[in-house]
Amino acid sequence: MSLHGDYDPQNIFAQIIRGQAPCYKLYEDEDVLAFLDVFPQSYGHTLVIPKRVAARNILDVDSDSLAKVMTVVQRLARVLVEELEPAGVQVAQFNGAPAGQTVFHLHMHIVPRYAGEKLELHASARAEASLLEQLQARLLRRINA
Amino acid sequence: MSLHGDYDPQNIFAQIIRGQAPCYKLYEDEDVLAFLDVFPQSYGHTLVIPKRVAARNILDVDSDSLAKVMTVVQRLARVLVEELEPAGVQVAQFNGAPAGQTVFHLHMHIVPRYAGEKLELHASARAEASLLEQLQARLLRRINA
Repeated sequence: MSLHGDYDPQNIFAQIIRGQAPCYKLYEDEDVLAFLDVFPQSYGHTLVIPKRVAARNILDVDSDSLAKVMTVVQRLARVLVEELEPAGVQVAQFNGAPAGQTVFHLHMHIVPRYAGEKLELHASARAEASLLEQLQARLLRRINA
Repeated sequence: MSLHGDYDPQNIFAQIIRGQAPCYKLYEDEDVLAFLDVFPQSYGHTLVIPKRVAARNILDVDSDSLAKVMTVVQRLARVLVEELEPAGVQVAQFNGAPAGQTVFHLHMHIVPRYAGEKLELHASARAEASLLEQLQARLLRRINA
């Protein structure tokens, strides 16, 4: 998939937004949805997406929607740092398959980094459901505290 | 440098903002400055920073400043795509040295990706001044077109 093209309304994130596919939800409002990546690069890998725009990437999202996404990215980065105490956090957003994009609905990655741990290759292994459920519960307690 | 700590007003980006150090400037307004990375990971590697907040990372910037930065990130990503025609673009932001942060003033990376080209290791080699000047002129023509 190149940088330019049509939005595919059947992509997995569009299905999640419509409630047609499940996710380990951490946060939702009218404009933004955040959930755990099921192919995490590290413990706590979270995705944040705009809900109301059919944007493939940063080139075709409106700046207001992008700002709303970033406010949630920032909020959840703080939650992940407080709860999981990583050594660092990477925020990343990929545009086009050659840049690492695999789902063509705009999404921001929040990837906690732990001392001495390298990142898993993205989409290399699906995390155990029990681990994701436990992590979701832990983060939701912090978010709702 | 950990995720938490004091802002060092002598960091190189603070010096650039104050006009005490040079940069290959691409864009500037009251709140945001964008310039070429002198240790580029790819051709067109650009940095976007907030000018008026002493923020080390995404944890301690205010959401309005972050939104303003992202609007410029988006604008320059479009410019880079139009002018350099990369296969993809990565947007990244690192928090804490273990996550790859080397300058402790919040900055967003815009890294064009070209088919078949791997990324250079960040900060591994300083780009030739003549190449940076030529690239700056090329991008400024596009920005001002």
